[in-house]
Amino acid sequence: MGWTDRLPLDGLMMGEQLLLSRLIDYAADYHGKTEVVARELDGTVARSDWASVRRGAARMANGLRAAGFDGECRVASLEWSTLAHLQHYYAVLGLGLPLHTLNPRLTPDDLAYMVRLVGDDVVIFDTENAALAASLAPLVPEVAAWISVGDIADELVAAFPRLIRESDLLAGAADAVIWPEFDENRAATICFTSGTTGRPKGVAYTHRSITLSAMNMSMADMYANTRGGEAECVLPIAAMFHANAWMMPFSAALNGQKLVLPGRRLDAGPIVDLIVDEAVTLAGGVPTIWTGVLDELDRRGITSTPLRTALVAGTALPGHIFDRLTERGVVARQSWGMTEVPGAARGAPPLGASRQTPEQQRKLAVERQGRVAAQARARLVDGEGQPLPFDGVAAGDLELRGPTVLSRYVGEPPEAAREWLATGDIAVIHPDATLAIVDRAKDVIKSGGEWISSPQLEAAAVSHPAIAAAAAIAMPHPRWQERPLLVCVAEAGLTVSDEELRTHMEAAVARWWLPEMIVYRADLPLTPTGKINKAALRAEYIEAEGSKR
Amino acid sequence: MGWTDRLPLDGLMMGEQLLLSRLIDYAADYHGKTEVVARELDGTVARSDWASVRRGAARMANGLRAAGFDGECRVASLEWSTLAHLQHYYAVLGLGLPLHTLNPRLTPDDLAYMVRLVGDDVVIFDTENAALAASLAPLVPEVAAWISVGDIADELVAAFPRLIRESDLLAGAADAVIWPEFDENRAATICFTSGTTGRPKGVAYTHRSITLSAMNMSMADMYANTRGGEAECVLPIAAMFHANAWMMPFSAALNGQKLVLPGRRLDAGPIVDLIVDEAVTLAGGVPTIWTGVLDELDRRGITSTPLRTALVAGTALPGHIFDRLTERGVVARQSWGMTEVPGAARGAPPLGASRQTPEQQRKLAVERQGRVAAQARARLVDGEGQPLPFDGVAAGDLELRGPTVLSRYVGEPPEAAREWLATGDIAVIHPDATLAIVDRAKDVIKSGGEWISSPQLEAAAVSHPAIAAAAAIAMPHPRWQERPLLVCVAEAGLTVSDEELRTHMEAAVARWWLPEMIVYRADLPLTPTGKINKAALRAEYIEAEGSKR
Repeated sequence: MGWTDRLPLDGLMMGEQLLLSRLIDYAADYHGKTEVVARELDGTVARSDWASVRRGAARMANGLRAAGFDGECRVASLEWSTLAHLQHYYAVLGLGLPLHTLNPRLTPDDLAYMVRLVGDDVVIFDTENAALAASLAPLVPEVAAWISVGDIADELVAAFPRLIRESDLLAGAADAVIWPEFDENRAATICFTSGTTGRPKGVAYTHRSITLSAMNMSMADMYANTRGGEAECVLPIAAMFHANAWMMPFSAALNGQKLVLPGRRLDAGPIVDLIVDEAVTLAGGVPTIWTGVLDELDRRGITSTPLRTALVAGTALPGHIFDRLTERGVVARQSWGMTEVPGAARGAPPLGASRQTPEQQRKLAVERQGRVAAQARARLVDGEGQPLPFDGVAAGDLELRGPTVLSRYVGEPPEAAREWLATGDIAVIHPDATLAIVDRAKDVIKSGGEWISSPQLEAAAVSHPAIAAAAAIAMPHPRWQERPLLVCVAEAGLTVSDEELRTHMEAAVARWWLPEMIVYRADLPLTPTGKINKAALRAEYIEAEGSKR
Repeated sequence: MGWTDRLPLDGLMMGEQLLLSRLIDYAADYHGKTEVVARELDGTVARSDWASVRRGAARMANGLRAAGFDGECRVASLEWSTLAHLQHYYAVLGLGLPLHTLNPRLTPDDLAYMVRLVGDDVVIFDTENAALAASLAPLVPEVAAWISVGDIADELVAAFPRLIRESDLLAGAADAVIWPEFDENRAATICFTSGTTGRPKGVAYTHRSITLSAMNMSMADMYANTRGGEAECVLPIAAMFHANAWMMPFSAALNGQKLVLPGRRLDAGPIVDLIVDEAVTLAGGVPTIWTGVLDELDRRGITSTPLRTALVAGTALPGHIFDRLTERGVVARQSWGMTEVPGAARGAPPLGASRQTPEQQRKLAVERQGRVAAQARARLVDGEGQPLPFDGVAAGDLELRGPTVLSRYVGEPPEAAREWLATGDIAVIHPDATLAIVDRAKDVIKSGGEWISSPQLEAAAVSHPAIAAAAAIAMPHPRWQERPLLVCVAEAGLTVSDEELRTHMEAAVARWWLPEMIVYRADLPLTPTGKINKAALRAEYIEAEGSKR
């Protein structure tokens, strides 16, 4: 037959690459007067718009080029979520250079490790991070230049082998640029995960993966879902060095949305000010952020805000936060993702949810972590790697695959490329495509061949008024293999007997899940991103930790 | 500096290609029980779901492979919008073969031209198109095989050099398949534009471009915008051979939405049945379709339906259709695109529209053709190719660019690749990114150096009760270069003098726009897709047409 020796037929569409410079150009060209607002480091609110952000990014790009920072130069930023940082994002990425967003909450030693691993040549830092940068500089002499944004104390200057003031870099730089064209698979932002154990691991996004993530998050059931399509005002209550602040600096540009950046402090007071003053319609944050925001609203006696949607991720959405948000007319939506796979599950309820009772809808919102998205296919596998059904019952290791999913960490060799990414989470997938995370694989407690979910156990404990916080970890057990040890923090001035607490918890979990032992301490150790550091607890309480790390 | 001789740093995300097989796999794996419904050729409604559609597609794919139709075989379909056609879409595309969707409303001669131009090897046709296929077969002896779906009359069989019955092809074929991996830039569907002049021109989409189009159309302000993110039930009131039925067979799969296919006839009665019986929440169609649907609803006395959004494209949305839809609680949204650039402008109103008065919102909905989308950047250029501002005033040739935009037509050589696609439309872009199409470039009437918009002139004429339809074309004029000739169809039994009609029209358009001459005829010639065929009118009325064709 005539077709056996034919060449493949290519389609005839434009080969334009998915570059992040397209997003800032789109926002500036078509939504140039849409506001971009940020709380600056001095606490004031700076006002800008997408056209001005592009001009600022262009000046920075021209300044970097003029100073010789182009070619294959690698740039790092040590900055909070400010307008300047946003402009650095688009300047560096627009030039096609990788931007390594460093987390200022880490130690100089950890930062030095990451700077060396990526091979950063230039580090941009802001005023508040000048002292940290000065501590870091001696550890990484291979960094060719340091760029300071804003004032820097005289006594710090000597710490840097070559210090350039951003104002000098920008002096005379033109505020327009034609962004270069390059392969969409080139590295874009590089972001390290907050490993609860061992060294942080680097995720190098591509221009393609970020564009697809931003598109995925812009779909109807995600970052823009509440106004019948009209543009939102979005606020990521998250740092720009943490998975690109939920990708919102990109998704907002893609949609011409108003963007509000929270600056350095994510304290409830300033956040509530931004929500009210800037008419934020959609904001994203971890549950503890939302608790703070709700407490602050109560304190001020505010019962209604412009906010329409609260996106929750990071850890599960507690029922009481859902209830408090719902009372204020805010739709609470969980979405699930990780640095390695931003926005893997969408925030939307499944088909038919609007016809369910409020109680059913609450259950869906609280107990499910979103709906599996097409750009990050999910599967569940058992201990032998065999796929499990999506029946809402079978729990297995959650693995992901797709063009927005990490293939390998920075520094891993090409042969480490993954076909499926093991997330380290144990999950269930329901027939309506909603995902329920049961536990972290390393935190799950395996008792007598069955699994005990540590988050569910903790939720049951915390629902007692005397318990402020709780962490369940596995303790080895001669008969049952593992049994739960519950580490609690008591509410100030309150106590509860172990027996009384177990009785209380039994209303929520199976009897055999009840903790084998209960201990108290003043507070729980946290990871740099505010999650409970279970590895530290295991190291402290469990002698034979071994493979659990 | 150390980075000048470095290799580019690649990102480390998975290189998974954007293939259309991912969409059917996503829909089947995670939304397998979500319904897919189609009106079959016999008028009955067939019920299926995404899991069954994949099984059907897999069987067809296995059948095609077993018969040797793989490698670089090119497949054409001559079918209406049925379940079988949907399965053929995913079977052929899943195998990585191009699927050339032929328009059964064209002549055998035109079809033969297109089949030869693409180099089709196999043609799949349904019962209703068997006679047409039999007329076509002798004209294209290079087609190696013809596959008939459903019964075929005995007297037609002899027309085909090699005829395979689909039932034979499927007999014994397994209903599961692992789709092959290939480059996302390979040709996917191929679809010819309904040129109003000359031969139709072929658009060869890629797997990448269709996936990006489907994602773009799934964004909050487009195909899924009305239910706060909950999945819709979508109905494309359009043929699957016409730009893939507005891409809805793909966008519905991408979102796990219920899909309803209209079958052959787009008559209002069966369409209204589908909307009511299947609880369609979002449907797309050209304005004449909506007029028919509204008339039918009136006839039945139905004032409320499940429909939440009516997407309108093809030609502008007349105000009276907007009003009638609004009265029934349906949000009417215009979106603008063309076969060469599906969904170039999104249906959403701009930021702040919800705070406008109903009258302002109506104006936006009626007078703007959507908001420019990031995946198809738009620019306006003047006669010298210089860009014009997006100020809502400057009108220029609309040009588009992006990964969902045609680079060249089938048969054009590589050097014909476009940097920007000239759409042939004259447009204005407003500061809020909304697009307003002024006229087709070849239809605009250039009078004394100024432009007269033929659609606006026609709208002014049709607003007179005695005028059923009107088409304005340019007639040469010694002094003004061109002047409008208005070709009218009178309402049965009504007449109006030229002077009275001009006086009536003067309320809506400038005095110098008024037609130089008015002529009447029984009806207006139409193109195969139902648009007024102005080329035919020019050929009939204007001697010296020349460059206007």
